[in-house]
Amino acid sequence: MQVGFIGLGRMGQAMSARILGGGHDLVVYNRTPGKTAEISKLGARVAPSIAAVCDGREVVISIVADDAAVKEVTLGAGGVKASLPAGAVHVVMGTHSVATVQMLAAAHAQANQQMVSAPVLGRPDAAAAGKLMIVAGGPPDAVRRCGPLSEVMGRRTFEAGVKQEGAAAIKLSNNFVLGCAIEAMGEAFSLVRKYGVAPGVLYDVLTEGLFASPAYKVYGQIIVGQAYDKAGFTTHLGLKDINLALAAADQARVPVPSGNACRDRLLGAIAHGDGEKDWAVMAREQARASGLE
Amino acid sequence: MQVGFIGLGRMGQAMSARILGGGHDLVVYNRTPGKTAEISKLGARVAPSIAAVCDGREVVISIVADDAAVKEVTLGAGGVKASLPAGAVHVVMGTHSVATVQMLAAAHAQANQQMVSAPVLGRPDAAAAGKLMIVAGGPPDAVRRCGPLSEVMGRRTFEAGVKQEGAAAIKLSNNFVLGCAIEAMGEAFSLVRKYGVAPGVLYDVLTEGLFASPAYKVYGQIIVGQAYDKAGFTTHLGLKDINLALAAADQARVPVPSGNACRDRLLGAIAHGDGEKDWAVMAREQARASGLE
Amino acid sequence: MQVGFIGLGRMGQAMSARILGGGHDLVVYNRTPGKTAEISKLGARVAPSIAAVCDGREVVISIVADDAAVKEVTLGAGGVKASLPAGAVHVVMGTHSVATVQMLAAAHAQANQQMVSAPVLGRPDAAAAGKLMIVAGGPPDAVRRCGPLSEVMGRRTFEAGVKQEGAAAIKLSNNFVLGCAIEAMGEAFSLVRKYGVAPGVLYDVLTEGLFASPAYKVYGQIIVGQAYDKAGFTTHLGLKDINLALAAADQARVPVPSGNACRDRLLGAIAHGDGEKDWAVMAREQARASGLE
Amino acid sequence: MQVGFIGLGRMGQAMSARILGGGHDLVVYNRTPGKTAEISKLGARVAPSIAAVCDGREVVISIVADDAAVKEVTLGAGGVKASLPAGAVHVVMGTHSVATVQMLAAAHAQANQQMVSAPVLGRPDAAAAGKLMIVAGGPPDAVRRCGPLSEVMGRRTFEAGVKQEGAAAIKLSNNFVLGCAIEAMGEAFSLVRKYGVAPGVLYDVLTEGLFASPAYKVYGQIIVGQAYDKAGFTTHLGLKDINLALAAADQARVPVPSGNACRDRLLGAIAHGDGEKDWAVMAREQARASGLE
Repeated sequence: MQVGFIGLGRMGQAMSARILGGGHDLVVYNRTPGKTAEISKLGARVAPSIAAVCDGREVVISIVADDAAVKEVTLGAGGVKASLPAGAVHVVMGTHSVATVQMLAAAHAQANQQMVSAPVLGRPDAAAAGKLMIVAGGPPDAVRRCGPLSEVMGRRTFEAGVKQEGAAAIKLSNNFVLGCAIEAMGEAFSLVRKYGVAPGVLYDVLTEGLFASPAYKVYGQIIVGQAYDKAGFTTHLGLKDINLALAAADQARVPVPSGNACRDRLLGAIAHGDGEKDWAVMAREQARASGLE
Repeated sequence: MQVGFIGLGRMGQAMSARILGGGHDLVVYNRTPGKTAEISKLGARVAPSIAAVCDGREVVISIVADDAAVKEVTLGAGGVKASLPAGAVHVVMGTHSVATVQMLAAAHAQANQQMVSAPVLGRPDAAAAGKLMIVAGGPPDAVRRCGPLSEVMGRRTFEAGVKQEGAAAIKLSNNFVLGCAIEAMGEAFSLVRKYGVAPGVLYDVLTEGLFASPAYKVYGQIIVGQAYDKAGFTTHLGLKDINLALAAADQARVPVPSGNACRDRLLGAIAHGDGEKDWAVMAREQARASGLE
Repeated sequence: MQVGFIGLGRMGQAMSARILGGGHDLVVYNRTPGKTAEISKLGARVAPSIAAVCDGREVVISIVADDAAVKEVTLGAGGVKASLPAGAVHVVMGTHSVATVQMLAAAHAQANQQMVSAPVLGRPDAAAAGKLMIVAGGPPDAVRRCGPLSEVMGRRTFEAGVKQEGAAAIKLSNNFVLGCAIEAMGEAFSLVRKYGVAPGVLYDVLTEGLFASPAYKVYGQIIVGQAYDKAGFTTHLGLKDINLALAAADQARVPVPSGNACRDRLLGAIAHGDGEKDWAVMAREQARASGLE
Repeated sequence: MQVGFIGLGRMGQAMSARILGGGHDLVVYNRTPGKTAEISKLGARVAPSIAAVCDGREVVISIVADDAAVKEVTLGAGGVKASLPAGAVHVVMGTHSVATVQMLAAAHAQANQQMVSAPVLGRPDAAAAGKLMIVAGGPPDAVRRCGPLSEVMGRRTFEAGVKQEGAAAIKLSNNFVLGCAIEAMGEAFSLVRKYGVAPGVLYDVLTEGLFASPAYKVYGQIIVGQAYDKAGFTTHLGLKDINLALAAADQARVPVPSGNACRDRLLGAIAHGDGEKDWAVMAREQARASGLE
């Protein structure tokens, strides 16, 4: 396929390399030029502008940092909307608010372009191995057209339905459930510590039984080892994602008491100077609130 | 070993059969006589009273329904405390409040008896297969003496430390983390439904990724299938367990906002008539609170 | 009237003096004898036992510290139930759980005695001045019979209905609403401080406007002045009352998220060593959670 | 003084009439021209544009509906920033987010203009009587210069300090404390109803005692009478204000569990179709969550 790719961050580099490896014709664009060096060596052409990266492409993928960036990329002067051929597909793969996804989808529809929202789950190493989980929402034929690309980037594509924002809601919900799980674990760890239990024992009980999954193993281990300094995902980023989920809940009129408990703990952690720690530091903030630190 | 066993409910029957099968000498007692029939056929002697079941035993196990029952069994006239030989061990295997466990441990210490708190994780089928998870707290030598029994009943014994209530705190925390996970899932399912997503898609994303564990698979499936009628664990029982955890948190001065969110949802479910449904019905109560039912 | 009075704490002394001053015939009893000295000088007879204080009385009032005490006084050997003449009224004026009030009411009904639950609002000085607010629940004729006593003790009696526990629920709700108001104020004070506002300004805005009432004035002033050391009502007592309200909510299946927020803050305050401060210290605990202390 | 006034809604009409009545020279502007008719009859000049209403004025007041409007009015082409003389004061009297107030203050400072944030408490009738409560934040000399205007519009001006956003934080906090009070009352009303108490009795106890203030009297009465249809302040507007307070808390890193409880209840009410009812309908939503409706 004739593919354009915007956003060469760590995820974008790994994902675009997979596309190239899959035999597709690839043009890339990144605001900061340096980041295109590696993919260029692998054989991709580097476009000097968004307009150029969209020119004549069947599919243009974007994966950028936040709502402001994707709005600028899509709706700004010389952006994707202005440049993409009619009938072509813009695949938005970043994690964005449902409101932004709805706005972008409407803009593309107005321009007779198609848009698929396809946020991913997985870290850069999974992206490099083509083992991402992709959640795709949008017009079924557009999703289908992107199939060959999903195939090289992901181990499975989950079809969220015809609404683009549905895919965003699923991605946000996954992080929401994770944040809530960490907060609940934190409460439990504080509780057992007060009764003289070594945290590692609770960790073993949880992860050998009902909670034998990455969420509890990875984050439980960080909590037990108090290994908050090497952040896989920071408290600031965690708050950003939880706030996106709460904004989606607000818009949809869904009360989310567990989500609020998570958000409050993240705020407390940041207030105590832990904003750049791994967001599992929620457990330490919980301990602090329990008089344990 | 010379073992006494009190409480022949479904769990007790399966566990005592394992002990018998392990070659130990077993006397059993149950308040309602009928329930001893099966284990009696297998070769256990049936004692007519708690005093008789304790007579000359090295270890007496009790697994009864709630705090009131274990207090009556232990501290009532002719109870375990009055009947157990000095130096022998009472293994309390029911799920009880930390306050009750502390009270019982103090009572046994006063009578020069030993007590181990050893709640179990697992259902009757795991008990029958000797695959329970056992969490044991108490004096290390007492825990060690019970080793041969733990070995036939469980697949692993987790040592909670020298305080009996520590084991209770771990057991309650496991259920606490589970209840919180169900509530958080419920919030997420309500959220995605509002954006037009079929719940099964979120289920797949969760359980193929970070949440590939029994807690999310078992309860997520009940939620997606709305299969609340066949209750594995009822809302009433769920509330009872969460309240035990909250009482432990209260006593230890631990704020538990996630636990409160779970409790409130359970109360709402019961208020709407769902007390005898599976406690995954929290997700339906959450949907109700979101205007979805 | 022929009145018995049990419980000569600070409230009881002031209330019984009012009854005596109202021209009623008064016998008093207190577990600790010393506390009856003053009322005895004023002309009350001192009874040596609960049985004696109940002997031949039309009405016996009790106001004791907690559920355990009122159960002992009422249901213990030689207690009010065993001693009060048939048809006479036991007026329970302490602050008790709805469950205990229900249990006592059932016990008295069984003994052909009447019971009125009549908790009071107000401090000892209001009691001394006969200006308490009394909330009375129970059989209308029993409430009416106590009218002359309510008249000398209180400035107004609020009729809660025929169920005794209704009066208890109202009393607990009043404290519940108060605890929630303090917590909400605490959150607001933390918020404005972060934006450089002197707390006294928010205090003025609140108490000159929508919140010109004792709850906000008294507790707002404590918060602004950080005058937590001279406790009018301690955090420990606050937690006890909020827990009684939460137990009532649990029994009635009422979710209470605001009450949970209050309870969590009280637990945090106690965990940080503020259990004997005035319960307005919730605001300091909130500030701590916000990284302000 | 030479005064400009932007925003002739119900509040703006009443406030500008007070300024005119105070003998000041007044020019007004409103996007929708019709709304200026009345104040024009009273003697104000009507300007055709924001530029014209700012021309040569010492002070320009704006009171518009929301953040979007005040940003457009201030920063849009031909807006206040572009038109106000250097050294003059823009008094922003609407209820806005702290982030917007900060942004506007920075913009004015850059243009060598002064800005005062001066949100008001009170309804149109209080505005017409010059009895508003005004909370003013900003450079002390700018606040002082506006003194003569505050005097005719308000019964008291509360000085929030040198930061403009401090005044916004106070205004938002006042509504926040109110929303929390309504939610807590709602929980208490649900609780007593479950014990057979008529809501009016709890109302009397609260409002004759610790809560004898407008917040509890006005909203308690609406709740007792279930008079939600005639909305003084709608649930939608309540949610908007609570969300502004939560955004301020988020930015300042302040956990706000009571505020979250309020927000969740508002969301539930809107989800059940009560968005245009008076926001006291939180109490009905609470009752619904308790299985009472």
